[in-house]
Amino acid sequence: MTNKKEINAGIIIIGNEVLSGRTKDINTSTIALWLNPLGIHVKEVRVIPDDENIIIDSVNIFRKKFNYVFTTGGIGPTHDDITAESIAKAFQLEYGFHKEAYKILENYYKPGEFTEGRQKMAKMPTNASLILNPTSGAPGFYVENVFCLPGVPSILKSMLGGLKNNIVGGKPILSLTINLKTVESEIAKSLSEVQNKNKEVEIGSYPFFRAGKLGVSIVIRSENQSKIDSCNLQILKFVNEKKISIVDL
Amino acid sequence: MTNKKEINAGIIIIGNEVLSGRTKDINTSTIALWLNPLGIHVKEVRVIPDDENIIIDSVNIFRKKFNYVFTTGGIGPTHDDITAESIAKAFQLEYGFHKEAYKILENYYKPGEFTEGRQKMAKMPTNASLILNPTSGAPGFYVENVFCLPGVPSILKSMLGGLKNNIVGGKPILSLTINLKTVESEIAKSLSEVQNKNKEVEIGSYPFFRAGKLGVSIVIRSENQSKIDSCNLQILKFVNEKKISIVDL
Repeated sequence: MTNKKEINAGIIIIGNEVLSGRTKDINTSTIALWLNPLGIHVKEVRVIPDDENIIIDSVNIFRKKFNYVFTTGGIGPTHDDITAESIAKAFQLEYGFHKEAYKILENYYKPGEFTEGRQKMAKMPTNASLILNPTSGAPGFYVENVFCLPGVPSILKSMLGGLKNNIVGGKPILSLTINLKTVESEIAKSLSEVQNKNKEVEIGSYPFFRAGKLGVSIVIRSENQSKIDSCNLQILKFVNEKKISIVDL
Repeated sequence: MTNKKEINAGIIIIGNEVLSGRTKDINTSTIALWLNPLGIHVKEVRVIPDDENIIIDSVNIFRKKFNYVFTTGGIGPTHDDITAESIAKAFQLEYGFHKEAYKILENYYKPGEFTEGRQKMAKMPTNASLILNPTSGAPGFYVENVFCLPGVPSILKSMLGGLKNNIVGGKPILSLTINLKTVESEIAKSLSEVQNKNKEVEIGSYPFFRAGKLGVSIVIRSENQSKIDSCNLQILKFVNEKKISIVDL
């Protein structure tokens, strides 16, 4: 199912709070859903601790392995925010005040409120390109194919819009979901036959228990709408034969 | 902050549905919160696709790197459920019907309902140990230090209880959270000083926007309650000096 021309991405979630279970990561989903229509496939996510060597190693592996890398977390003002410095080290770049970021933050805060703590948010690889932050001032940044975003989900989300022009994607990834009132084992064999006949689409099967309804969601993904449509018809054929109901979720 | 005697774990989330953004992973949080009181530190999470070679490679890396490995997803009856066979290959073990699992499933279903699709859920490394499933019959399994759980969060959660006796942990990981009505940059310097004076505790700082409240959660983590308490006092001291309010969340 791997397409050699496929444009891919890896995501690195930096944060002890996710590893400890305190915080559930929702940034992966936000980034992946934003990348689908840009035709970029997320192939791997790693959640790693606030540890400089691990950040450096992970970034250096991912930036060679994937077309695009997104990191989240660790670009705030506190002692555990070490992403910017680690990225500078990964690329062997100078780390210090970024002139443009400094100006943005200086203008953002009232006179006298651009404190030492806040100034730290202007420190990054000095020649990085900025990712503007319409929510809370402090910009993200990118170096080559590595895009560094904050960990706070609402702020991250608000910064993605401004990033679109810096990314060259592929064919949009399309998907279709069919929700069935059945159990997986009832459809496993027929679904497997459809997948074997349609190697270029990706068919996933996911049990759900939602709002008192129990069933299976079948998700068909491809860059080609007509292949999705054809697959859909083949699935509806056996669904109909087995007298399985389609459910609205 | 790394303790050499520390017992650690890695989690491998297997599933295209997480990479596509369709599903938000909450199993990491469930497993990590369950491991904290057992004294096992989650050090890395990887989210990987339903791809045999990638599963095999990831499992072989993780089982050497960590004391315990937990995989989630891919043990159901459909064509995209390839975890059990991949684990057998990773360990170079025979893959086939597991006698005990077969019996459990045969008893679980009504006569005539133990179909071919359902029988697939009894296939795994034939000498694996089972993880019983009080919710939906089909067991998970483990081989050496690799524990394979399902992807459906409620089922996974119900299976953890039975697993406790198969895991040897360390000192429980304790934590304390202080929620402050402030912004990170206001406390960054003082917090950093406390962290520097208390290298053996892990202090995290996390901005929150919840229920109309804006602030910062400070999380202190350690295996040693008195070190947490001492750190707490040092934080409360500067919080008090700066006249910052503590918030109930």
